[in-house]
Amino acid sequence: MSTHPRLSMNVATLRHAPFAESLAVMTGAGYEAAGLWREPVAAIGLAEAAARFADSGLRLSTLCRQGFFTMPESPERRASIDENRRAIDETATLAAAGADGSRAVLVLVAGGLPGGSRDLPGARARVADALAELAPHAAGAGVTLAVEPLHPMYASDRAVVSTLAQALDLAAPFPADVVGVTVDTFHIWWDPEARAQIARAGREGRIASFQVCDWATPLPADVLLGRHYPGDGVIDIGALTTAAVDAGYSGDIEVEIFNEAVWASPWSEVARRTAEAFEASVAPRLAAAVG
Amino acid sequence: MSTHPRLSMNVATLRHAPFAESLAVMTGAGYEAAGLWREPVAAIGLAEAAARFADSGLRLSTLCRQGFFTMPESPERRASIDENRRAIDETATLAAAGADGSRAVLVLVAGGLPGGSRDLPGARARVADALAELAPHAAGAGVTLAVEPLHPMYASDRAVVSTLAQALDLAAPFPADVVGVTVDTFHIWWDPEARAQIARAGREGRIASFQVCDWATPLPADVLLGRHYPGDGVIDIGALTTAAVDAGYSGDIEVEIFNEAVWASPWSEVARRTAEAFEASVAPRLAAAVG
Repeated sequence: MSTHPRLSMNVATLRHAPFAESLAVMTGAGYEAAGLWREPVAAIGLAEAAARFADSGLRLSTLCRQGFFTMPESPERRASIDENRRAIDETATLAAAGADGSRAVLVLVAGGLPGGSRDLPGARARVADALAELAPHAAGAGVTLAVEPLHPMYASDRAVVSTLAQALDLAAPFPADVVGVTVDTFHIWWDPEARAQIARAGREGRIASFQVCDWATPLPADVLLGRHYPGDGVIDIGALTTAAVDAGYSGDIEVEIFNEAVWASPWSEVARRTAEAFEASVAPRLAAAVG
Repeated sequence: MSTHPRLSMNVATLRHAPFAESLAVMTGAGYEAAGLWREPVAAIGLAEAAARFADSGLRLSTLCRQGFFTMPESPERRASIDENRRAIDETATLAAAGADGSRAVLVLVAGGLPGGSRDLPGARARVADALAELAPHAAGAGVTLAVEPLHPMYASDRAVVSTLAQALDLAAPFPADVVGVTVDTFHIWWDPEARAQIARAGREGRIASFQVCDWATPLPADVLLGRHYPGDGVIDIGALTTAAVDAGYSGDIEVEIFNEAVWASPWSEVARRTAEAFEASVAPRLAAAVG
């Protein structure tokens, strides 16, 4: 049993699986690569997680996620910067433990407006400040920071980075192997500039991660959980995949789904359905690169 | 009793008020201008609505709304184009019935992806086609079509026009008095380009309507209804008002709120609170223009 060689399961898709079980599900279903999350790693400790990940034979595609550094200078901001340094080190450790082809990529979610603030330009400027502060540590650790633009419906409470153009502008002052971007179909599909900015990201060498999942309406009551298997919604995932391929992206492609119904399904079924959805919606656009 | 001379109540804020009652509420609260909706007008007939509107002494700021023309060529599309022509004529009639300073502006919501389609560029191209088809009729009627970009969370099911830049690009082929844009704080506040595009809209003479309301999280289960009184959310409405003033916008400013709790409040209270919110969040930025 095997899956497409470029398919990576982001473990958020198996939300309720403990770390070891998520690895077993993926290897059992024939996956070669995984996107990990910090919380399940922390639950068993980094050393144990790294050992188990090494044993799994899986490649690391990304570690999700840190960031959350929009607050003004304060002890809270210092704690966030420190937490990001730890996340960078974890990324390096897990990438070193992963199979050949592992990539030391840390996904960064900017954070929303600080409580009580309406100063969106200020919050965005503090994201730039945080990147400047973290870039030397990332460079020293050999880790790429992958700034992820989130859908604009999260601008107030989760991520003030809302477009791929904005993420690329934030990354621009830094070397491309130190600060890149995460391209997630769910977050950028609506953008009239999406394909042009994917092309730009490729030209600038900054596509550090490519994630796919689908959008469908109506949104659920918790709009964080409205993500679907590729092909189950309205996003032209094939066209965006082609844009990434044409932009030169040749790395693993993660399927990352936040959805209560998916999370409530048997993990092996989720792994199988994810692989099938990838075959149907993404793989045909990768044929040239694979063949 | 009077309200700010540039404040207009969009009657959607008084969702459940019949046409005559909404006019009485507004004039009773000292409003000088109103943004009307087609449905309450249709409920009593255009001639009757125009007569009552003339009697009210209110100015027309906009008529909301038509559009919804993303479908491929079909009888359904022909029906939509015809409906838009009727809406243009209604706009002209109501503006003529309104007090001096009335503006014949029809707000256009593009419509979402046609059922079963993932072709977002195609849907967007058909919006451009519809504008080309309608522009001569609008020009002949002396009506400005105000293309409204809606928040990207509505891109799939309500409006494939998602940014002010995109709306301005759609308007560009036409004279500015025939096709302009609607700038609504709720829809564009998150956009890193918002202020720059408001400035551009001003330079190009295309701000046909400026609407204000606020964004707060968490969003309600129906994300259409997450709009709040100016000042009750996270949008820097003052900054966006200043951007519109600096761009040369000197027309009425509508408060348009979709919110079940607001709709369930006594209409006179809604009118009062709207005026108070406007005084606090918008009026200070208009001082130079008014003084």
